[in-house]
Parts: sequence; C-alpha cells; structure tokens
Amino acid sequence: MSGDELCSASARDLARLIRSREVSAEEVMGAHLERIGRLNPRVNAIVTLLPDRALEQARAADEALARGDESGPLLGLPVAHKDLVETKGIRTTRGSPLFRDWVPDRDALIVERLQGAGAISVGKTNTPEFGAGSQTFNEVFGATLNPYDLTKTCGGSSGGAAAALACGMVPLADGSDTGGSLRNPASFCNVVGFRPSPGRVPVWPQVLAWSTLSVQGPMARSVADAALMLSVLAGPDPRSPIAIREPGEPFSGPLERDFRGVRVAWSRDIGGLPIDPRVTTALEAQRHVFEGLGCSVEEIDFDFSGADEVFKVLRAWQFEQSYSELVANYRDQIKETVVWNTEEGAKLTGPQLARAQTSQTELFQRLRTFMDSYPFLLLPVVQVPPFDVTDPWVREIEGVVMPSYIDWMKSCYYVSVTGHPAISVPAGFTPEGLPVGLQIVGRHQDDLGVLQLAYAFEQATGPRRWPELLSEA
Amino acid sequence: MSGDELCSASARDLARLIRSREVSAEEVMGAHLERIGRLNPRVNAIVTLLPDRALEQARAADEALARGDESGPLLGLPVAHKDLVETKGIRTTRGSPLFRDWVPDRDALIVERLQGAGAISVGKTNTPEFGAGSQTFNEVFGATLNPYDLTKTCGGSSGGAAAALACGMVPLADGSDTGGSLRNPASFCNVVGFRPSPGRVPVWPQVLAWSTLSVQGPMARSVADAALMLSVLAGPDPRSPIAIREPGEPFSGPLERDFRGVRVAWSRDIGGLPIDPRVTTALEAQRHVFEGLGCSVEEIDFDFSGADEVFKVLRAWQFEQSYSELVANYRDQIKETVVWNTEEGAKLTGPQLARAQTSQTELFQRLRTFMDSYPFLLLPVVQVPPFDVTDPWVREIEGVVMPSYIDWMKSCYYVSVTGHPAISVPAGFTPEGLPVGLQIVGRHQDDLGVLQLAYAFEQATGPRRWPELLSEA
Repeated sequence: MSGDELCSASARDLARLIRSREVSAEEVMGAHLERIGRLNPRVNAIVTLLPDRALEQARAADEALARGDESGPLLGLPVAHKDLVETKGIRTTRGSPLFRDWVPDRDALIVERLQGAGAISVGKTNTPEFGAGSQTFNEVFGATLNPYDLTKTCGGSSGGAAAALACGMVPLADGSDTGGSLRNPASFCNVVGFRPSPGRVPVWPQVLAWSTLSVQGPMARSVADAALMLSVLAGPDPRSPIAIREPGEPFSGPLERDFRGVRVAWSRDIGGLPIDPRVTTALEAQRHVFEGLGCSVEEIDFDFSGADEVFKVLRAWQFEQSYSELVANYRDQIKETVVWNTEEGAKLTGPQLARAQTSQTELFQRLRTFMDSYPFLLLPVVQVPPFDVTDPWVREIEGVVMPSYIDWMKSCYYVSVTGHPAISVPAGFTPEGLPVGLQIVGRHQDDLGVLQLAYAFEQATGPRRWPELLSEA
Repeated sequence: MSGDELCSASARDLARLIRSREVSAEEVMGAHLERIGRLNPRVNAIVTLLPDRALEQARAADEALARGDESGPLLGLPVAHKDLVETKGIRTTRGSPLFRDWVPDRDALIVERLQGAGAISVGKTNTPEFGAGSQTFNEVFGATLNPYDLTKTCGGSSGGAAAALACGMVPLADGSDTGGSLRNPASFCNVVGFRPSPGRVPVWPQVLAWSTLSVQGPMARSVADAALMLSVLAGPDPRSPIAIREPGEPFSGPLERDFRGVRVAWSRDIGGLPIDPRVTTALEAQRHVFEGLGCSVEEIDFDFSGADEVFKVLRAWQFEQSYSELVANYRDQIKETVVWNTEEGAKLTGPQLARAQTSQTELFQRLRTFMDSYPFLLLPVVQVPPFDVTDPWVREIEGVVMPSYIDWMKSCYYVSVTGHPAISVPAGFTPEGLPVGLQIVGRHQDDLGVLQLAYAFEQATGPRRWPELLSEA
C-alpha cells in the first residue's frame, strides 16, 4: 500500500492490517509523519510533533507483534491529543502563553487509555486559549486553518484535531466538548466528533469530579472509527465518580441496525434560532436519507427554553472555578473573552446557580419525555458554515446580532446542558465547498444508538470528499 | 406462628414463608397492624396509617399466590414510607404544617419500586419538618420517641422509620440521607440504615437530578434485610441521570465473605471530633470482632479537612434551592432552623460554591486514594448517644459548643460529602441501655462490600436486644 493509501485508510482497517502484519506499524507511522510534514505547515493543526519517539514506538509495536505478544485494539495507530490534555513529558500549552513551556508529569486518563490500547502519540493538536470559543487560534501557535478553505476557520475548540483528521495526518484524535468543541470542528472539517454521555469517557484529572458539562470523546473520519476509539475510551475508572459502569467493548462491534419505523424529530432551526440558509439547504438535502432508512421523519422542534441561561451560568461558573486565580495574577496575558467569562462567573450568586440547576433538571426531564416519542433528534451542528479565520467569532447570523463570543454556538450548547449524547456527522457541503455537519442527539446514555443511526446515515451517503489541498502538492 | 413471632421475623424469612404459603400475607399484615396499634401510640413512629387498604392488598397478594401468579421478592411484606416521600393518594406532610393536607397525585420512584416488588404500604413514618435535623419532631405530629427510652429522641431525619422497625411494626422502611438521616436514627434505635452510593437508588422526583448529596436507601433490623430491600430499590431508571447502570439483584444474594487479611481503618474520633465517651467505650468493645474476622484493624484517621465547609455550603445551597419560595411566602409557618439554613443559602456566592465543589473533588480523591490501602473505614455514626427528646439539637459535646443545629452531625455528614457508601449497624449499648451504631464506609460504589462487612460483623455479635417496651404491655 502506498503512503497515501495508508493515510486514507480507516482506523479499523489500519488496525487489522497492522495486527495481521500485512503492513508494519513503522510504515503506517512513516506515511502519517510524511503527510504531517507535507500538510501541517499549510493548516497548522499539530502544534507539538514527536516524530522520533513515534517511530521508535512503532518499531517496538512491530517487534511485539513479531514476538506474538498480545496487542491492544489500536496497536500501532497514530493518534494526536488536544493540547488541553495533560501528556507526561510532552509540552501542554493549553493554548496559553502562560503555559508555553509547561510539561506535565502525568498523563490524563484519556491518554493512558489510548496508549494502553496500543495507539502511538504523534503529538498535540491546536486549541483556542484554554479551549475557549469554537475558533482555533491562540498567541502561542496562531490559528489552525480549514483544510477545505485555508481562508476559513476549522472551528473549535478541538480544531487542530479536526483539521489533522481531515488531512489524513492521523486516523484518530481525542477532543473535548463543553459548548460544542467536539461537534463544531467536526462539522467545519467534514469529520466525525462524538460528544458522549457524561461519564461514558471518565475524565481525570478534573477540577470538578462530578461535572457533566465538560466531556471528552473521540474524533475520526468515520462513525465506525469514532466508535472503535470510544470502545477504548469508555468504561469505569475509580478516579471519576460519575464514570458509567459499563465496559467500552460493545462500541467496537458492528453498528448495523434496522431503523425502519423509528420516529425521528427533524428540527430545522431549533425553535427559531437564526440559521444560515446554506446550512439549512445542505441538511434538507439529506432528509431523504433518513426516510430511505425507513425512519419516520417528523418536523418538530424540541422546546429548549432555559437552555441558554443554564449554559451561560454554568459555563461562567466553570470559568471562574478554573481561571479566577490566573486572571487575578496574569490578567494581561489572558485573552479578553476568557477574562470576560471568568469575571461573569465571579458575579454569580448561589440563588442564580440554584435556579440554573433547577432549570437544567427541568430541561433534562423534558427532553427525556420528548424522546419517549422521538428516540432521535436531528438538528444543525452549527448555525453557520466555516467563516473567515480572521474573525475571532461570529458577530451576526441572518441579521441577528450575537452579543458575546459564545452566542453563536447555541445549536451545540443547548444540547450540552441536557446531558444527552450527540454526534456531528458529515452531511454535505455548501455551494462554495464548505463542509456542513448534521447533529444527531440520542436518548440519555444511548451512546450506541446515536452511533448506529449516524453509521446508517453515513453508509447511505456518498464516498468521502477529501480536501483539494491533498491533491495540490 | 404467633403474631409476635411474625413481627420479630426477618424480612427474608417472612417473604419466604408468604411465598411458600406457610403463612398468609393477611396474617403477616394483621400481626403488624396489631403491633402498630399497640406500640405506635407510645412512640409515634407512624403518622399516617392505612390499615384497611393494607389488609385488602394483603388478601389480594394471597389470592395471587393461590392462583400461582408470579410474585415480587417482597410480596406481602409490610413497609412504611418516610413522610417526605410522595405517595399517590396518601397524605404527605413533609413534617410541615404547610403540607398538612397535601395529597400527591404520583408515587415517588422508591415507592413504585417497593410496591412493584410486592411490598404493601402500611403508612407514612414521621420526619422532622422538611427532614431538617437529626431529631424527629414537627408541629404536625409532634416528636417520635426512642423505643429504648421514651424520654430520648429516636434521631432523624428517618426517625419514624427507625422507631417503627425497632418496635417490629414493619420489617422494612425507606429513608433518605443528606447529612446522616439514614444512619443517625438507625444508630439511635438499634437498627440498620444504609446510605448507598449516589445513583444506586435512583431518586425521582427530585429538584436537582444530578445531586449526589441527598440519597434514598433501605432501613431494616438486619443487614441482610437492608440488602434485600436494596436489591429492589437499586438499578437504573431513565428519570435519574445519575442512576448507576447495574441491576439490584446481586444484593439479594448471600452476603458471606472472607475478610481475613483485609485492612480496616479504625477511627476513634474522626481526627479530633468530640465524642461522648459512652460511644467510644461501646465501639471499642466491638473492635475485637473485626480482629476475629481476620481483619487487620489499624487505628488511623482519614483527613476529612474541608468536609465541614463543603457540607455546610452545599446544604445551605440545597435549602435555598428547595425552600426559598416557601420561606418568602410563609416564613412564620416554617421552623427557625429551616429559615436560617435557607437564608444562609441565599447569601452564597458563585465563587464560594465553586470553592466548595473543588474542595469536594479533592476530598473524594483523597478518600479514594486512602481506600486503596484501607478498603473500609470504621467510625462512630453519632458523636453522642440518644439525647433528651425535649432538646431540639445537641448544644455541646464534651465541652465543645455546637454553633448550629447541624454541627453535632459531623460524624455522618463528613462522609456524605465524599460520595462514598456508608452503613450504620447496631454495635451495642451504653450502660444506660441506649443503642450505639458503628459506621462502616466503603470504597466508591462498593455498596456490596459495605453490606458484606456489616453482615459479617452482625453475624459475629450477639442476638438482637429488643426494646423493653415490647414486653411491657
């Protein structure tokens, strides 16, 4: 197989080929490092690269296979970690000049699990400063560009991961999601990002062990690969009290399922949010796919009232919790939006937070009941297509002004506060060739159902369209 | 079997006898109703009684058995529900004059599960107003007295449940626990109260679906019966997002386990809390039991620093959340301590709550690590023996002044905020004949381990000492 073929292959295929020794892990790693060397300077997705270490580990993987040693399900697969995630001995900047030279002395749980499954870390992927905002730029490394249009943003905050996947630099990458950070960049870069149920992927270290707002999850170019990655990331761990006590293995199995007769709620504009018509047009063109699967697709909006306030309050609270000390000490070295969000958090009162949590409970119960009738809810991932990379955020959608850097992310963060699992799956392009993602929300903790429906959708749509960038050089 | 024998029997035995039709459910119910009629006027444990309905349901259970219909594991067993718990068509006062005549139109999940397992509700058990404080008295029904000494409190807030069990009025009763409400009354009344892991028993309805501070759980006269009850209460339910996804059945199996070589941390005074010497003496006399089981019992304190502040902040927050509207509208009809706690909650700031949650995470991680070495932590349930029923709370322990109505409950609420499961198991008496409980804390979500060690302890101690009250009449 050529290097290009290896970089285009799925993670499932690559893992099988390596395990059966049809290709060596070293070849696979070499091809991906070459791809990174060729395209990363164009898009700036991977900001810390570890080529020697990665090649050495690939050779070690081949030797282990030659000896007949047992191997993990991701043996020899190149992966990259979001630069928010702690990696032992590897610089972890969090996109902040304050952490420019920070080298953690421990691996985050998600890194442990990937490496434990045999995956090989090639480096760290770019993220906005402290992961704040769905646009990947920071003062340490600059912006990550959209592989489908280098003048546009790749989205964020797991933007480096999405761009790297889209370019074939890695077959799998981790990400995290508070207000959409696994879904937004997947939508913008024509890849898959899955926000699992809180606790499905146990998070450690974590300032707030019981938090359900911020989760970690898999990103890949296909649903099956995201599910394979989830099979390794999921499962209980004593360090996370909210970890779901179910093993991850079932996610690595076949995802085929008969969806005939399943009722699906189709939400065009999430109850009146402004949506760019190019997004609506792209998604409407896919509606027939679900009908083709035998689903009963019904145009109906779920009532997300309360979600906006809940998210803004809980997010600000989390910022205050995480960054108040840094803001107090290094205010001038922290971007304005993070300072603003942290200071919003400092103003919160106990009763305000109490109302937010009550409201969140009401929202959860309302969606749970809604999903008794409609086990799946389909909606846009992002209200706009990828926008100019020089804009730090979207200031206006269809004439509606966005008062803060988070307001344009409603289509994602409304879902975050419900605690339900949601995926972004590629769903076509705008006339200009910009990717558009479809968001599938499933029942509480029905992560498998979400993956199954996304898989069925993906199977029914055409072959992958790669960025033209790949054929240029 | 005589009525007295039926009222003294274990729930496991009664269930077996009813199922095999050796005794009828009607006989069992009749005996318990008679016991209630005789003793309840003395202790005031059951505040709403449904004798006709209970007898009718008992007869229906017998008829179902005669027809050979399938039956639940608790078929025909009398149970009582805490008066905080919503019961459809049955008055639920919450111990408050404001709810004196409130009749809910739905059953709480815990009631559904008990009834679904075949248990028959005999009525509601007394609780302090809104469950606040570990002393069971209110303006609607007055105080519940301690069956072992009618001049003393039965504890609380599941005080009616504990007193009813101690008197043989029911073999099983539900309870709930924020700062010790399942454990404190169990300790004061010589019965078993188990605070399960948050999510083990899904709670619904609930103002805060993700809360881990307040849990519901089983109370019984023996560990095996509490475990049987838990087997019915545990297991996931879609209405509770934090429900642990494991079935309850395993708790109904045998609890025998070999504890040889298991390291157990023995905390005499929980790092310097004032403890009444009668409590210490009673518990020290039991230490040899664990040595007899082959445990390595080591005197070592776990560092609970931060727990006091965490609990006080989160409790006040929860009060504000639950009662601020009532306090605003009906202040003069709400007891002073509830008003105080609610108003403390109103003063909280977001950053204060953030610090409390960070601190709670640190505490969780510290206890988790501690329990890598010591899988069980043994400590007093209550720092004092049952006290005068005319005292609304304990004002002083060993010369240390208690500044609020919750301060004397530290030995329980320190454990609550760690999120770990804990049981109160009967552990002897003071020289005056007042019950003393031992608290066993287990690893995160190791509810079974806690029950197993408590069971082994219980098996190794003498036969049950019933209140003298029973032989008086």
